[in-house]
Amino acid sequence: MKKQFAVIGLGRFGSSITKALSREGFEVLAIDVNEEKVNQFASIATHAVVADATEENTLKSLGIRNFDHVVVAIGDNIQSSILTTLMLVEQGVNHITVKAQNDYHEKVLLKIGAHKVVHPERDMGIRIAHNIVSKNVLDYLELSDEYSIVELVAGMKVDGRSLIDLDLRAIYECNVMAIKRGEEVNVSPAPKDILYDGDIIIVIGADEDITRMEEELFPDS
Amino acid sequence: MKKQFAVIGLGRFGSSITKALSREGFEVLAIDVNEEKVNQFASIATHAVVADATEENTLKSLGIRNFDHVVVAIGDNIQSSILTTLMLVEQGVNHITVKAQNDYHEKVLLKIGAHKVVHPERDMGIRIAHNIVSKNVLDYLELSDEYSIVELVAGMKVDGRSLIDLDLRAIYECNVMAIKRGEEVNVSPAPKDILYDGDIIIVIGADEDITRMEEELFPDS
Ligand SMILES: Nc1ncnc2c1ncn2[C@@H]1O[C@H](COP(=O)(O)OP(=O)(O)OP(=O)(O)O)[C@@H](O)[C@H]1O
Ligand SMILES: Nc1ncnc2c1ncn2[C@@H]1O[C@H](COP(=O)(O)OP(=O)(O)OP(=O)(O)O)[C@@H](O)[C@H]1O
Ligand SMILES: [Ca+2]
Ligand SMILES: [Ca+2]
Ligand SMILES: [Ca+2]
Ligand SMILES: [Ca+2]
Repeated sequence: MKKQFAVIGLGRFGSSITKALSREGFEVLAIDVNEEKVNQFASIATHAVVADATEENTLKSLGIRNFDHVVVAIGDNIQSSILTTLMLVEQGVNHITVKAQNDYHEKVLLKIGAHKVVHPERDMGIRIAHNIVSKNVLDYLELSDEYSIVELVAGMKVDGRSLIDLDLRAIYECNVMAIKRGEEVNVSPAPKDILYDGDIIIVIGADEDITRMEEELFPDS
Repeated sequence: MKKQFAVIGLGRFGSSITKALSREGFEVLAIDVNEEKVNQFASIATHAVVADATEENTLKSLGIRNFDHVVVAIGDNIQSSILTTLMLVEQGVNHITVKAQNDYHEKVLLKIGAHKVVHPERDMGIRIAHNIVSKNVLDYLELSDEYSIVELVAGMKVDGRSLIDLDLRAIYECNVMAIKRGEEVNVSPAPKDILYDGDIIIVIGADEDITRMEEELFPDS
């Protein structure tokens, strides 16, 4: 059977989750106290209901315990977020993910039994700081404290040079895993493949090696 | 010379960027109208000042045009965010990144000359929806509409099997780029390397192939 999700709170974060889950074909129950917000989801979510999630009976009558995963995306009202989470835990919901405003909020949520706590603003701040510092790094995935995968923009310094010629593996211990050129993605780059200005390369390696490579071959334009 | 950053607005998003940039050793000027918030950054940022960024003379006297990159992280007050951005553009700041609340806000920001607009809550909503749908995907990097890199948790179905035995390349056209076991990361996995329950593998491939592989070899626990 298809997984059933419920999202409580349709601010930017809750809206985005509801849309993404619906787009992937999942059943989503969207809940908010604000009727206007709920109306916006009438045609997006499977069901959209106006309800105050801090009311125990309301959650019960919605059969919330039967949902596979409930996301609490009430942000600013920390008290409502905590109260709602507590009732979800008491009703035995299997997976509860809650958006936290700060560390104190997170601590309380975990203590009362939330399964996962997320900090969208904080986490995106860290990601975007990364992108700002190095304009040639478009996106990245941190594998550990020491290793990352990064998307680097190729510039004139590597334009027209083949991977074997650049020999990134020997010089920087970095492996090129993919090359993006416009909409095309080459996921098994060969040694003779040539890089051009504007290509995006996806590289795996140790942070310090990637930084060294970036400074020497991919300087900011 | 070291790059100089300024962050205007020390909410969760602006705080996080300021801390991340400071941690990486960059000079950061932190600005907020709220004295309490500014005080919290006295020992974190290079300089922390109480100022209303919508006042043209204030920005001028801070020498804002000399900064390499200015981040506007004023969220809720859209009018202040727009006004501040406009003045940064007029003073000729080279790189201006602005946090937007919604699509309308973004459109105005780009029209008046912001260089980059970000939507932390929306973007994290999409990321977290991804994680929720598939509990075995810890994190991912979207390379294009069709290709991604994902971090998958290995379970009992692959426990004790070597990469050559699983033959993911032939069966799913997916390449294993790294294997994480606790704090150890193996970034050049060999065919004879064996996976164990709890390992995290980093895989590159087409979305539909990854999904198929996930369903067959990495079912939700
Ligand atoms: N008790 C409650 N039951 C149901 N929904 C609630 C409750 N309290 C608040 N909400 C809803 O949660 C949503 C998110 O609240 P929040 O105050 O964090 O708004 P926001 O700042 O726009 O959110 P975001 O930070 O995700 O953009 C709002 O639409 C609000 O109506
Ligand atoms: N004109 C201004 N000049 C300087 N700082 C401002 C100005 N207007 C608002 N700020 C500051 O911007 C910060 C972020 O504002 P916002 O209203 O988005 O708060 P927030 O919701 O806590 O932020 P976030 O969504 O990042 O958590 C606040 O600390 C606020 O004092
Ligand atoms: Ca909010
Ligand atoms: Ca790191
Ligand atoms: Ca906000
Ligand atoms: Ca995709």
